[in-house]
Amino acid sequence: MGKWVYGFGGGASEGTAKMKNLLGGKGANLAEMSNLGLPVPPGFTITTEVCTHYYANGENYPKELKAEVEAALAAIEKTVGAKFCDATNPLLVSVRSGARASMPGMMDTVLNLGLNDETVAGLAKLSGNPRFAYDSYRRFIAMYGDVVLGVEHHTFEDILGEAKDGKGVSLDTELDAEDLKKVVKAFRAKVQEVTGKPFPQDPKEQLWGAIGAVFQSWMNQRAIVYRRLHDIPASWGTAVNVQAMVFGNMGDDCATGVAFTRDPSTGDRRFYGEFLVNAQGEDVVAGIRTPQQLTIAGKQANLSTLPAMEEAMPEVFRQLDTVRGQLEKHYRDMQDIEFTVQRGKLFMLQTRSGKRTAKAALKIAVDMVSEGLIDRKEAVGRINPGSLDQLLHPTLDPKAKKTVLARGLPASPGAASGKVVFSADEAEARAAKGERVLLTRIETSPEDIHGMHAAEGILTTRGGMTSHAAVVARGMGRPCVSGAGELRVDYAKKQLLVRGTTVKEGDILTIDGGTGEVFVGEVPTIQPELSGDFATLMEWADGLRRLKIRTNADTPTDARTARQFGAEGIGLCRTEHMFFESDRIVAVREMIMATTTEGRRAALAKILPMQREDFSEIFRIMRGLPVTVRLLDPPLHEFLPHTEAEIEEVAKASGASAETLRQRAIELKETNPMLGHRGCRLGISYPEIYEMQARAIFEAVAAVSKESGETVLPEVMIPLIATKKELDILKTMIDRVAGQVAKESGTKVPYLTGTMIELPRAALRAQEIAESAEFFSFGTNDLTQTAFGLSRDDSGSFLKTYQDKGIFETDPFVSIDIEGVGELMEIAAERGRKSRPDIKLGICGEHGGDPASIRFCDKIGLDYVSCSPYRVPIARLAAAQAAIAESAKQAA
Amino acid sequence: MGKWVYGFGGGASEGTAKMKNLLGGKGANLAEMSNLGLPVPPGFTITTEVCTHYYANGENYPKELKAEVEAALAAIEKTVGAKFCDATNPLLVSVRSGARASMPGMMDTVLNLGLNDETVAGLAKLSGNPRFAYDSYRRFIAMYGDVVLGVEHHTFEDILGEAKDGKGVSLDTELDAEDLKKVVKAFRAKVQEVTGKPFPQDPKEQLWGAIGAVFQSWMNQRAIVYRRLHDIPASWGTAVNVQAMVFGNMGDDCATGVAFTRDPSTGDRRFYGEFLVNAQGEDVVAGIRTPQQLTIAGKQANLSTLPAMEEAMPEVFRQLDTVRGQLEKHYRDMQDIEFTVQRGKLFMLQTRSGKRTAKAALKIAVDMVSEGLIDRKEAVGRINPGSLDQLLHPTLDPKAKKTVLARGLPASPGAASGKVVFSADEAEARAAKGERVLLTRIETSPEDIHGMHAAEGILTTRGGMTSHAAVVARGMGRPCVSGAGELRVDYAKKQLLVRGTTVKEGDILTIDGGTGEVFVGEVPTIQPELSGDFATLMEWADGLRRLKIRTNADTPTDARTARQFGAEGIGLCRTEHMFFESDRIVAVREMIMATTTEGRRAALAKILPMQREDFSEIFRIMRGLPVTVRLLDPPLHEFLPHTEAEIEEVAKASGASAETLRQRAIELKETNPMLGHRGCRLGISYPEIYEMQARAIFEAVAAVSKESGETVLPEVMIPLIATKKELDILKTMIDRVAGQVAKESGTKVPYLTGTMIELPRAALRAQEIAESAEFFSFGTNDLTQTAFGLSRDDSGSFLKTYQDKGIFETDPFVSIDIEGVGELMEIAAERGRKSRPDIKLGICGEHGGDPASIRFCDKIGLDYVSCSPYRVPIARLAAAQAAIAESAKQAA
Repeated sequence: MGKWVYGFGGGASEGTAKMKNLLGGKGANLAEMSNLGLPVPPGFTITTEVCTHYYANGENYPKELKAEVEAALAAIEKTVGAKFCDATNPLLVSVRSGARASMPGMMDTVLNLGLNDETVAGLAKLSGNPRFAYDSYRRFIAMYGDVVLGVEHHTFEDILGEAKDGKGVSLDTELDAEDLKKVVKAFRAKVQEVTGKPFPQDPKEQLWGAIGAVFQSWMNQRAIVYRRLHDIPASWGTAVNVQAMVFGNMGDDCATGVAFTRDPSTGDRRFYGEFLVNAQGEDVVAGIRTPQQLTIAGKQANLSTLPAMEEAMPEVFRQLDTVRGQLEKHYRDMQDIEFTVQRGKLFMLQTRSGKRTAKAALKIAVDMVSEGLIDRKEAVGRINPGSLDQLLHPTLDPKAKKTVLARGLPASPGAASGKVVFSADEAEARAAKGERVLLTRIETSPEDIHGMHAAEGILTTRGGMTSHAAVVARGMGRPCVSGAGELRVDYAKKQLLVRGTTVKEGDILTIDGGTGEVFVGEVPTIQPELSGDFATLMEWADGLRRLKIRTNADTPTDARTARQFGAEGIGLCRTEHMFFESDRIVAVREMIMATTTEGRRAALAKILPMQREDFSEIFRIMRGLPVTVRLLDPPLHEFLPHTEAEIEEVAKASGASAETLRQRAIELKETNPMLGHRGCRLGISYPEIYEMQARAIFEAVAAVSKESGETVLPEVMIPLIATKKELDILKTMIDRVAGQVAKESGTKVPYLTGTMIELPRAALRAQEIAESAEFFSFGTNDLTQTAFGLSRDDSGSFLKTYQDKGIFETDPFVSIDIEGVGELMEIAAERGRKSRPDIKLGICGEHGGDPASIRFCDKIGLDYVSCSPYRVPIARLAAAQAAIAESAKQAA
Repeated sequence: MGKWVYGFGGGASEGTAKMKNLLGGKGANLAEMSNLGLPVPPGFTITTEVCTHYYANGENYPKELKAEVEAALAAIEKTVGAKFCDATNPLLVSVRSGARASMPGMMDTVLNLGLNDETVAGLAKLSGNPRFAYDSYRRFIAMYGDVVLGVEHHTFEDILGEAKDGKGVSLDTELDAEDLKKVVKAFRAKVQEVTGKPFPQDPKEQLWGAIGAVFQSWMNQRAIVYRRLHDIPASWGTAVNVQAMVFGNMGDDCATGVAFTRDPSTGDRRFYGEFLVNAQGEDVVAGIRTPQQLTIAGKQANLSTLPAMEEAMPEVFRQLDTVRGQLEKHYRDMQDIEFTVQRGKLFMLQTRSGKRTAKAALKIAVDMVSEGLIDRKEAVGRINPGSLDQLLHPTLDPKAKKTVLARGLPASPGAASGKVVFSADEAEARAAKGERVLLTRIETSPEDIHGMHAAEGILTTRGGMTSHAAVVARGMGRPCVSGAGELRVDYAKKQLLVRGTTVKEGDILTIDGGTGEVFVGEVPTIQPELSGDFATLMEWADGLRRLKIRTNADTPTDARTARQFGAEGIGLCRTEHMFFESDRIVAVREMIMATTTEGRRAALAKILPMQREDFSEIFRIMRGLPVTVRLLDPPLHEFLPHTEAEIEEVAKASGASAETLRQRAIELKETNPMLGHRGCRLGISYPEIYEMQARAIFEAVAAVSKESGETVLPEVMIPLIATKKELDILKTMIDRVAGQVAKESGTKVPYLTGTMIELPRAALRAQEIAESAEFFSFGTNDLTQTAFGLSRDDSGSFLKTYQDKGIFETDPFVSIDIEGVGELMEIAAERGRKSRPDIKLGICGEHGGDPASIRFCDKIGLDYVSCSPYRVPIARLAAAQAAIAESAKQAA
């Protein structure tokens, strides 16, 4: 037998802010404010345990509940000095849900409860405002009828509409007290008609009806879906808050308002909010009247002509401003508050942590540290790492007018406008002429890289968050919207169709890669500005984290960007992107099309000096930092020539006939290229390819070491290892080449050799693989693909269904599936350490930039995460938060 | 300090047959025969431990070795009555390797050791045959020169060739003693020239040289590769056998021969072998003279005109026949023996278990049980399960002449001849006219099924042992050669090219699916005959095994075949094959092309009655046995129409335009279909498909139960489950449909619902999946694909390289990769049982018919394996052997 009801108000409470699990968020904060001595209308909270009990016992309440509610109600009556059911001075209450986690709009609320034919008259007399009283009554009947009695909302709307039609007016406010009396009568008649019973006149009966309805609403369909999507257990239950009503609409000495204790968009330490005189909370939201600013400064900033509260109600404003200070000091965070002024008296109805922009979050966190409210650890913990994306890329001007054309996936953040082009070549050609273009493709492939570089942004109609377009765009820092399936691209006609609208090549579109929206025409954007607060907070974060942050960078540009963002090395330098550069693709194709080792060697000899120069440049930029170079990974056919002109070009270079080349291209085609002849399998079949790459790496090491006098430490990474033998064969070759280069150059050539762990088998066999591998880098993209048997490129067609049905809570290509893929990683880490306790462990999949995944990587003790350049700051922050969480766990 | 040398011969030995690990196979059996009192030339074995010591100690022998060898040599001298290095009565010895496992031809042998310029004269005198003596000497110099001194073999061949040219003859035997003396002289000069030293004349020096060479040969490249391929640890080492030479070529009272104690091709209990009078062992092998039969019966059977040994040497024959009986009784197995008769005296040189055909193996095993030599368990253990394949399919007549055209993979056993056709339609059309055809494709797809049915055999130029063609062919029992990459198919010209040869449609080819060979023209075949021995042995096997054997069968024909072969249920009934039947493919396509639920439902309604009839028929055949039905698995695009005519047909049936259909086909195309929108993902996206299938199953259950009065128990299997939620959503639907059908039909509809475990994630999450799944069936094909990240269809291009380089010891699609895929299975079985201790566990991947994999399935406690109909007998036998091995392990 527990305590089921907790009272609050009148300067004291039975609960506190810490009791959110028991009282829900709203109830706990009302109790806390009451404890602080703030003016909170008295009330009580029926705990979440009642909800749990209710569902565990065939929808029956604990037997003690009735008595506890009645006692709590009596306490309210005493504090307010009004009485429930009293015809002359009636107590009215609100009944609201309030779960542990915020579930906005998911559950039901009843206001003005306690009104009936008698008390409404008393309220009219007491307020001197019969219209107010009857308006409250009709609202109550409609709300209660809908929520508790199951009379559909529109039924009441229809009656109200008829009343207005009958009087020839269009606004509710044009109905007077007499009109509303008639509406009330009609409402009651309707309730009788639909339910077969009169509208309950007994306020106690009303109260129990409303309490029951709130508990019932915990299991309504909307709430169930919401919980499933937000991973909220049904067992948490909701609390019910019953609170004395206060009214901001009883006259000109009344008001209602909402405020933030600091500016939620800039973070400035100024009181920010709006209020309406003689109004109810819903009027502020409805936007029927123009709200007034709280402060004179706010009035000036908004060019408002209406008086600020600071002027109009200076006394109450001072009270409110004091409350603001008390709340910030107490909660040590910016608060989002609701208040009502009833006849010159201030009442606080809600306080909670306020939502804010990323910029504001940074400023508030940094300011609060200097104000001594929080420490650095707490400041770092307050920032949502993902929100930093807003700060690193151009964003759409929030004031600009926009027309949405379509929606896709927010594949790479930032906003961009440009002329639509449908091929990489066209993108490059127009960009060379100084035009800004938006590369628009059904999907992209490695041969579109030059066009993606040239474009301002990328738009695809197929592919998910980890499609080629998305991954490459994020790496380059180009905004990208992927999988905008409503768009139908017609390459032949050079146009795209969206539900009847045609967009032609050269027409301008704008994309917002942060939301996935596509807009008609050009939408102005705002350039990012990395403020001092950003730098300060990142410095604090760096001091707190254990994980190193590296970057995935294939080009000098990427490498430079990443260093600017604070990368501590390259965790993944893909060598295949280099193969697509226009100066070498012909030689690469010649190599692929060769059917003999000699043919391949001849072509590779042409590629070697170029590849060596690629590495040299990157080693120069990353000097002093580790660089992990992955040997060739994708299936060879990705490099194949497609057009007749390309085939001719390769034929000329290689001396083979075009027909032979076409035949070879057919031979190289694969049913499931992701599971085909790629990764280290290429190195096993054609050792000369990896040999050339190893030589290019080591020659670059030797050259850069000589020129700079510093040691360069490459980590040679072999992809797609499934067995130790593959690694052993290739490592022997790499060691041999390193020895040769050291001898030829007369320089020491230090290096590590390691593997990707991206196949389930490799994770399981990690112990023996680690006998040869000096490091593991988790390739979680492929590990996710193989663990789930799920192709990134093809999952788009059903991923949404899977998320809608709650099968995937998040896209497993975005955030590591901890239960499955995560277990494979843990197994690999544990087994790898068994044979090599100091093995270096990292992650280079797309997940390396995802905060939840970074938290997991920290937990299983990886040494570093590697992510695309633009996610480096996010990863630095997420790593710091992971370390904070981990140390808090250890302390607990 | 151990004992390093074990003597044998003279009627007693220091070793026994059980000491194979120490003495090697040859040494142990020589010792054993000696112990049995059989006439074995005396000798000694230097143990494998000496080899291990040699390599562990910088190639040095144990210090006691020299003394032990000399003592053993003295013992030989005493037994033989001849002396090493004695010019008048010289002892000659052979020096042979002999490892624990047979490694034929991998290591070196030296014969006639002990000859030098003096002893050769003594041998000439003693034998009265100078030619024999000098022939032996020149052979010795060449063999020793090659093996011990590193003078290349061809050097000696060249000198011998010159000698023959000089004399104008062409055969070695045409050289007389004088000629050979000159050859010997030239040989010795050559050795001096190449090595800078004279050929060693001291027999002791010769002996140590030969012993060293044998130990060295353990680490030669051939031996290393052989060990790697056969998984023989280098640490085992080889033994060295030194044995007194005996000569079958000293005159007409001498002979040499090889024999099997029973007929190795039929298993008949008759002495079977050949011998040559006045000859050496190598002459029998060389085939210069026609060998004579051992027995008169053999002489008659072979229509030989030469006298049998039984006639020519009746006394020695009787001795040999007695030895035969002794050996069989002692070894309780058919033996393969070598013997030499020197001047009327029999010597046994080798005995070992004899290789035999599958048919012979069965007969010998069954006969030996009735003879009381072995028990049933041992009989069952003696048969190689894989060899049964020879008995179940037509085979090529071994006597037929054959011209190999190309080689591919032995994808489905059996031999077949037919006219080459290049399309399934052509195959069907010609078969309908009574022609026998061989369907030849680059690769096959589900829409070729009708052509595969119509064909005698299937030949593809791409794809591995588990490509579509291979899997389907095995299921149908059609011979198949897959991945014959040398063949180049030209569909347009209706021909195939092989290195210049053109094969046109209608030309006849023959394939041997057991070897992967493709032959020109028609090669006669022999039909299988399942003898009484087969039935007897299978019955014994059934009594011993724990695992149930089910079959993978999609059609009534398959189901009937499998029952005849002893299947105890269907472990995998794929429903997609049914979709390709010509009477429903249009409706199936209509369903796929539909873009709305209604459109799909309309098409599905047409398919329902046909699918119900499919199931009814199979349930009737399998009455009383469980049938696992897998809901639709492959990606929808596999069913798409391809030709314009097909598209038109679907357009007509569905009312959609051809253009819309083409567009839809493009939408359905996937980059990696194996990892795409398939399996339960279809059931989640389009619940109406699985709903129709569930209804068809349950309606069939109801109908067949009613008509037969027996209960039918289907197991509804959901493919490609990665998460419990997928299963829960689909199980709820299945339960609902079952309830509806039960109500509608007024019949009980019992069933189980379970999943494939074919994704690594499913294996890891088995505990929670088993909360809902009543059975697991391991889909090891896909589990192998995902664990390795390896596509069955695409692995052909590098699988051979992987096997050659020792990365894969066996094709992981043929035999379960126990270390990786196997661990996933163990994890899943263990975790599944945690939440459902009695969960039914089976395997339905191709591995279900592989003996090594069956052994593993038995070990981890699966309830059944399921394999293609023609592998059911193999699986029954393998399961029995697994049970025997397991119980032996438990006993130990």
